[in-house]
Amino acid sequence: MKTVTVNLGERSYPIVIGRALLDGNFDLSRYLRSSDCLVVSNETVAPLYLDRLLGNLDGCRVGSIAIPDGESFKTIATLQTLLDELASRRAGRDTTVIALGGGVVGDIAGFAAACYMRGVAFIQVPTTLLSQVDSSVGGKTGVNHEKGKNLIGAFHQPELVLIDTDTLKTLPPREFSAGLAEVIKHGAICDAEYFAWLESNMPSLLAKEPAALAHAIQRSCEIKADVVAEDERESGRRAILNFGHTFGHAIENSLGYGEWLHGEAVAAGMVLAARLSGIDASEVSRLTALLAAAGLPTEPPPIDSERWFETMGMDKKVQHSRLRFVLLRALGDAYVSSDYDPARLQALLGAGG
Amino acid sequence: MKTVTVNLGERSYPIVIGRALLDGNFDLSRYLRSSDCLVVSNETVAPLYLDRLLGNLDGCRVGSIAIPDGESFKTIATLQTLLDELASRRAGRDTTVIALGGGVVGDIAGFAAACYMRGVAFIQVPTTLLSQVDSSVGGKTGVNHEKGKNLIGAFHQPELVLIDTDTLKTLPPREFSAGLAEVIKHGAICDAEYFAWLESNMPSLLAKEPAALAHAIQRSCEIKADVVAEDERESGRRAILNFGHTFGHAIENSLGYGEWLHGEAVAAGMVLAARLSGIDASEVSRLTALLAAAGLPTEPPPIDSERWFETMGMDKKVQHSRLRFVLLRALGDAYVSSDYDPARLQALLGAGG
Repeated sequence: MKTVTVNLGERSYPIVIGRALLDGNFDLSRYLRSSDCLVVSNETVAPLYLDRLLGNLDGCRVGSIAIPDGESFKTIATLQTLLDELASRRAGRDTTVIALGGGVVGDIAGFAAACYMRGVAFIQVPTTLLSQVDSSVGGKTGVNHEKGKNLIGAFHQPELVLIDTDTLKTLPPREFSAGLAEVIKHGAICDAEYFAWLESNMPSLLAKEPAALAHAIQRSCEIKADVVAEDERESGRRAILNFGHTFGHAIENSLGYGEWLHGEAVAAGMVLAARLSGIDASEVSRLTALLAAAGLPTEPPPIDSERWFETMGMDKKVQHSRLRFVLLRALGDAYVSSDYDPARLQALLGAGG
Repeated sequence: MKTVTVNLGERSYPIVIGRALLDGNFDLSRYLRSSDCLVVSNETVAPLYLDRLLGNLDGCRVGSIAIPDGESFKTIATLQTLLDELASRRAGRDTTVIALGGGVVGDIAGFAAACYMRGVAFIQVPTTLLSQVDSSVGGKTGVNHEKGKNLIGAFHQPELVLIDTDTLKTLPPREFSAGLAEVIKHGAICDAEYFAWLESNMPSLLAKEPAALAHAIQRSCEIKADVVAEDERESGRRAILNFGHTFGHAIENSLGYGEWLHGEAVAAGMVLAARLSGIDASEVSRLTALLAAAGLPTEPPPIDSERWFETMGMDKKVQHSRLRFVLLRALGDAYVSSDYDPARLQALLGAGG
């Protein structure tokens, strides 16, 4: 069992990582403010893990609710369902909301915890690789709005994140690879040594070897925790976590959300961002090779150059303006800048010449 | 022009109090993060003051929206209307939400500001006495749920509270008196000298003499600001601000919300709480006389004793338990305790003998 501490002053919390933690090997009740709690899961994850989680909550007054599975249900309407459930249970200020599932469950359950009685305790039990290495650190919660993803939400830090690596056994391969995109991103932006470790250990990760998984999750959480601790409200350095995301969001937006998984779009976006950075071609090749080894796309889908600029927020009126991109000085060393070569950007997006 | 500073570290902000501030005498744009802002008001207040407020926002990109007037519209549905408006305007992280109106407008506009993009800037321009002395300090925002008032919300501090005392000229007398209930409360719980000043100056306040109004609003905001600064998240001392509120909520709940105004219910509740405290009868009489002079009820409506206990959360199962009340040691000196005389409580609520 490994523990990563996210240092945020009085909002600090531990991320506990290990095997079989949901099989009664971890006493969750110690982290509740009272014996009352509500487990929020979804219709896919609940049948797999809810009963096992309940085994870690002996003697508590536990309620549970399963929301439909999928990003399209990350809405204010679903949020209201959770708030209604808390109110119907007459949950008090000392209740705890426990999220069991992936990023959607964590984001919406966390937001419900943030706004019920202006904030109750929250525990995350992420069951996808992406949510384990990404949304378990940072405190971002929220729902989508038809005009934009995550447009409505709150910063609300959990009391605890509990990661049972055994839950990854049931994760579909495509979603597992999408999670690896963020893992690779952490190496690429902050830690060349970790990047090299990932190059050596990708086969073990794909085979879901527990020791390799635990190491990758731990190191990724540490990297993200370090960045977030410096900049909890995302006013500066935290932006480097968006490496590949400007291009990635444009891909998701152009294809329609859900066509490519977020991690897939970010993978192709990281290759574009690395090329835009003007780093050594051998380093771009290492990034491309590692992403490909993880089962991820390394080239964007065909998108019209005008559509690229539009979805990146550079419409015609502001084509002369410059976007801020996360760029690399080298693998393991990212920075945020608008000082890139516009001709190279045009060429990358097929608008060359 | 007077300024009260609410000291909350990096979340500190000024409350500016004066006459004719909405007539272009105060440059609001200095407090905006960018030139973009959305004014939220209601259908009663907007026709009276919106144009005047806009005069303080020269050169800004201002949108405005008026919600229906009344507590019954303080709902998630109305919140969604405001969030839709922000999203439709493509408001960014640097936008500012400005609330122009009473407590309902402030609570819901503040909550929209708290959760749009996980928090944008917020300015309050309260136009009722109650919102000027109560919701302008404390950072509580939110909406009602059918199972409870203010059940959904966030703590979100404003950048500025701008109080133009001239707006009280159009406030209906009954609502003005309801605001005075909270003013009197501030004296009763924290400041005997201020209480005595209110006794001497109630006629001036009722005549809406500007100097008297400005002093009362300033002193009430100072008292609340001191209490809140000690306990921003309401874990301890802040509870003394609930003097009269346990009984008051029971009155509102028993009669149905809206039958008595909140301030009216709190007024009768303060008299009951003072009696329960066992302070000198002459002090109870002073409190009663001051509330009566302010045009407020000093006796509760007829409520069955069983209903009293039920609405205070003391149902039969827990009748042996004790509630925590805000009690007085003397006028100007409140404390929170469950150490009261149960027989006296029973007698007060008509369950005597």
